[in-house]
Amino acid sequence: MKNSVSRHLFLATSLLTLYFVFTLSPQASAQTKVQEADAIFIDRIYDQSLTDGRCYPWLEYLCHRIGHRLSGSPSASKAVDWTKSMLDTMGLDSVWLQPCMVPHWVRGAAEQVRVIGSKKNGTFPLAALALGGSISGNLQAEVVEVDSWEQLDQLGAAGKLKGKIAFYNRPMDATKIRTFEAYGGCVDQRVGGASRAAKYGAVAVLVRSMTLRLDDFPHTGTMHYDSAYTLIPAAAISTIAAEKLSLTLREEGQVKVSIQLKCKTLPDKPSFNVIGEIRGSERPNDIILVGGHLDSWDVGHGAHDDGAGVVQSMDVLHVLKTLGYRPRHTIRCVLFMNEENGLRGGKAYAKEAQRKGEFPLASIETDAGGFTPRGFGFDSEEAVFEQFYKKIEALEPLFEPYGLKFAKGGSGADINPLKSMKGLLSGYSPDSQRYFDYHHAETDTFDKVNKRELELGTASMAALIYLIDKYGL
Amino acid sequence: MKNSVSRHLFLATSLLTLYFVFTLSPQASAQTKVQEADAIFIDRIYDQSLTDGRCYPWLEYLCHRIGHRLSGSPSASKAVDWTKSMLDTMGLDSVWLQPCMVPHWVRGAAEQVRVIGSKKNGTFPLAALALGGSISGNLQAEVVEVDSWEQLDQLGAAGKLKGKIAFYNRPMDATKIRTFEAYGGCVDQRVGGASRAAKYGAVAVLVRSMTLRLDDFPHTGTMHYDSAYTLIPAAAISTIAAEKLSLTLREEGQVKVSIQLKCKTLPDKPSFNVIGEIRGSERPNDIILVGGHLDSWDVGHGAHDDGAGVVQSMDVLHVLKTLGYRPRHTIRCVLFMNEENGLRGGKAYAKEAQRKGEFPLASIETDAGGFTPRGFGFDSEEAVFEQFYKKIEALEPLFEPYGLKFAKGGSGADINPLKSMKGLLSGYSPDSQRYFDYHHAETDTFDKVNKRELELGTASMAALIYLIDKYGL
Repeated sequence: MKNSVSRHLFLATSLLTLYFVFTLSPQASAQTKVQEADAIFIDRIYDQSLTDGRCYPWLEYLCHRIGHRLSGSPSASKAVDWTKSMLDTMGLDSVWLQPCMVPHWVRGAAEQVRVIGSKKNGTFPLAALALGGSISGNLQAEVVEVDSWEQLDQLGAAGKLKGKIAFYNRPMDATKIRTFEAYGGCVDQRVGGASRAAKYGAVAVLVRSMTLRLDDFPHTGTMHYDSAYTLIPAAAISTIAAEKLSLTLREEGQVKVSIQLKCKTLPDKPSFNVIGEIRGSERPNDIILVGGHLDSWDVGHGAHDDGAGVVQSMDVLHVLKTLGYRPRHTIRCVLFMNEENGLRGGKAYAKEAQRKGEFPLASIETDAGGFTPRGFGFDSEEAVFEQFYKKIEALEPLFEPYGLKFAKGGSGADINPLKSMKGLLSGYSPDSQRYFDYHHAETDTFDKVNKRELELGTASMAALIYLIDKYGL
Repeated sequence: MKNSVSRHLFLATSLLTLYFVFTLSPQASAQTKVQEADAIFIDRIYDQSLTDGRCYPWLEYLCHRIGHRLSGSPSASKAVDWTKSMLDTMGLDSVWLQPCMVPHWVRGAAEQVRVIGSKKNGTFPLAALALGGSISGNLQAEVVEVDSWEQLDQLGAAGKLKGKIAFYNRPMDATKIRTFEAYGGCVDQRVGGASRAAKYGAVAVLVRSMTLRLDDFPHTGTMHYDSAYTLIPAAAISTIAAEKLSLTLREEGQVKVSIQLKCKTLPDKPSFNVIGEIRGSERPNDIILVGGHLDSWDVGHGAHDDGAGVVQSMDVLHVLKTLGYRPRHTIRCVLFMNEENGLRGGKAYAKEAQRKGEFPLASIETDAGGFTPRGFGFDSEEAVFEQFYKKIEALEPLFEPYGLKFAKGGSGADINPLKSMKGLLSGYSPDSQRYFDYHHAETDTFDKVNKRELELGTASMAALIYLIDKYGL
C-alpha cells in the first residue's frame, strides 16, 4: 500500500492516451494501434472462450458429481479437493489452500410446515425450507401476516404477535428492471425477521420466498439472530404457499400452522479457500483477483449460485494461459469458502493479504449467475474511487462489441473485506432476469446454465483483467 | 406516399429539440420537461407490462392448447381464430382477418434416416427432420461430406457427387457474438443445398442442424428448389448425428445411409393474417405496426419462434389501451401468416396497404425470441435512412435505463415487403445466445420462455411506439 500513489500513476499516461483516442478521433497513429491491438487481443480471448472454454464441462462435473456444497458439508470438502486438482493441471505458478474455520449448520430431516384445520381446505402442507442458521422447532400456533416493518411494530406494540407465528409476505417488486434491486428491497425480512418478531413475543417466522416467480419451490438463505431476543425457528415458504396462506388468512380470519424443523448448528469446522495464480513479471505483489464462492446452499446444484462464478474464475486463468499471456501483475483465481452463511473465506483472504503486504490492485467477483454478460460494476474506498473510475471508463468502448456497460457501484461480498486496502473492486454483472427464479432453491441446477452465456462471462472478465494488467490503474 | 416529405418533416422540430436536450445539457426548461414526461410514461409502460402483462398467459395458451401451427394445418386455423378472439376482447377500434393463400406442406410419418452397415457400429439411426418443402424419398446411397461451396463444386466437377447423398456439415461459427450472424453464415446450406447438389447428380442431401449446441435434436426449416435441377429429398440431422456421421466417414472412408421421408406438398390453402388496431386521432392513415408471425414449424410449440412475437405484439396494444393512451397515428398489431415457408402473409399485407394507400410510418417486427431486450435494429429504403436514423437515435437515451441499444440494419421478413413504401422498419432485438438452441426444433417449448424477459420485450416495443407516435418521424 505504501506505493499506492505511484501505482495509481503507473502507466496513467498510456491510459489517458487511450482515453483521448476514444473520445477524440481515430487517426492512423501509434495511439490507434494501441486500441487496435487491444481490440484484437480481446477478440482472441472471446474466441478462445467460445471455442475451447473449460467452464461448462467443469460446471457439469461440479453440479452432477459433487452437487450442492454447504460450508462444513462433505461435498464442500470434495469441491475444495476437486477444484484444487483442476487448478493443479493448468500449469499455474502456484496453487494452494487457504484455511478458514466455517459454520456448520445442517438441515436434518425435511421440514414439515402445515396449515391445520382450515375451515375450507382442512389440513394442507406449505412447501418450506428452514432458513440457514435457524434453530430447530416443533410447534403449532396462529399466524399473523406482516407486510412491512411499520406493521410489525404496530402489531407488536398491540401485543398481537405474542405466541404467534409472524408471516412476512412482502413480495419482491416486479417493476424493478434489475432484479437484484427487488431482492435488496425485501431480503431484510429473511435476514432479520426472526429476531425482530421475537422481540414482540412471536414463536416462529415464515418468510415468503425471495423470487419473482409464482411457483412451489421454497428459496432458503441466511438469517441472523440478535442475541438480545429469544431465538425462534425461521423458514421460507414458496410463493404459492405464501399466496395460499395469505388467502386463507383473508378468508378465514384465523389460521393455525404447525412447524417442524430438524435443523441445527454444529461446532465450526475447518475448511479452505482454493487459490491459483499466474505470477506477475513486473509487479508480482500487486494482485488482480477474479473469484466466486465455492460453497452453496444445500439444495439444487448451486449451479448459478455460485458454481458458475467458480468455473468462470478458473477458466479466466485457463484462457489467459492458453493464449500464452504473460501478465505484469499477478493474476489470481480465488474460490472463496462460506460466502453464503458467514463470509469466513473472504475475511480470511483479506486478513492474509494484509499480513503478506499484498496490494489488491483489482478484485473482480462473479456471483450473480452464469447468464449473458451485461457489464461490470465498480467500487472502491471513496477517496480513490473517482480516479479509478475515470481510468476504467476509458476502457468501456472496448466492451461495446460484446454488449457490456460499466456502472458505478456494486462488487461482491467476498471481496468487500479488501475495500479498506484501497484497490479497485468490481462485480461482474450478467443479465439478472432469471437469477432469482433459481436462487437458493432446488431449481438451481446445471441445466439452467447456458454454455455460451457462461463462456461469454469468462471472456468478459479475462478481457477486463488483461486491460487492467496492461495499463495498470 | 405522396406526402412522405411533409410526413418526414412532421414534428421534426420537437424531435430535434429532444435531440439537443440529450446531447447538450439538462437545463430546467420546457425541453427538459418533454424528456421527463417521456421517461415517466415509459416507466409506466414497463410497470404495466411487468405487473399486468397478458403476453405470458397468452403464450401458455398458444403453446399448450394450440401447439405448433404450420401454415395450412388445422392448428394454424385454430391460432387464427383464437388470436382474433383475444383481440376482440381488447376494445380495439377494429379487428379483422386478412386473407392469403398459403403453401400446405405436410411431414407425414416420422423420418427414418440410418447409417447402414458401418464396420464399427453396424446400422444406427441419425436423428432427422425433413426440411420444409422437401419432396418425399426412399433411397440408400453413399454419403459425401461437403464443408464449403468450393468443395461442392470441386467434388461435383470431379463427378464424385453422382448418385451420392451430399452431407452439408459446415457448422455455425461459435465465435460470433450475435448468434444470428452465425446462422446467416450457414443457413445457405439448408435453403439452397439440395438443388446445388442435384446439379451434380446427388440423390439427396442431409444438412447439419443450424444450432450452436451439440445435442440430438434436429432443427428443420425452409428450403427452396431451383426448378432447373432434379428435385431431391432434403433433411436436417442433429449436430450429434452430424458429428457421428462425419466421424464414421473419416474412420471408414465409405458410409452408406438410407433415407425415408414421407413428406409432401398439397395444394395451397386459404389462411389469414390477424390484425387489430387502435385508430389514430390525427393521422389515421399513417400506420405504426407491431407484428410477429402466427405460423411456426411443425415441431415443439413454436414458443420463441414466434409465439413470443405474437403475444408481445398483441400485448403492446393491450398495455397502451390499459394506460389509456390515445395515439395520433394508427397503432396496428399484425399477426402474419406463413413467415416460415412462403411469406404469403407479409406479401398480402404489403399489397393491401398499397391498395388502400396507407403509409407504413414505422413497422416493428418481433421474431427473434422472447429473451431479455437488448435493442432495436432499424432499416428503410436507402434514400430515407439517414434522416430516419438521426431522429431515431435521439430517442435512444430513453432506453438506457432498460438496457437497450439502437443499431443500424436489421428488421424482419414479414415487414420487408413494406420497405419500398419508404417507412421506417425495425427489428426488435432480444438477447440471442439461446435462440438457436430451440429454433425450429422439438425443444422450442413454452417452458423455455421466461415471463419477465417476455414482458420486458412487450414494454420495450410499446415504449418505442409511444415515442414514434408522439414525435413522428
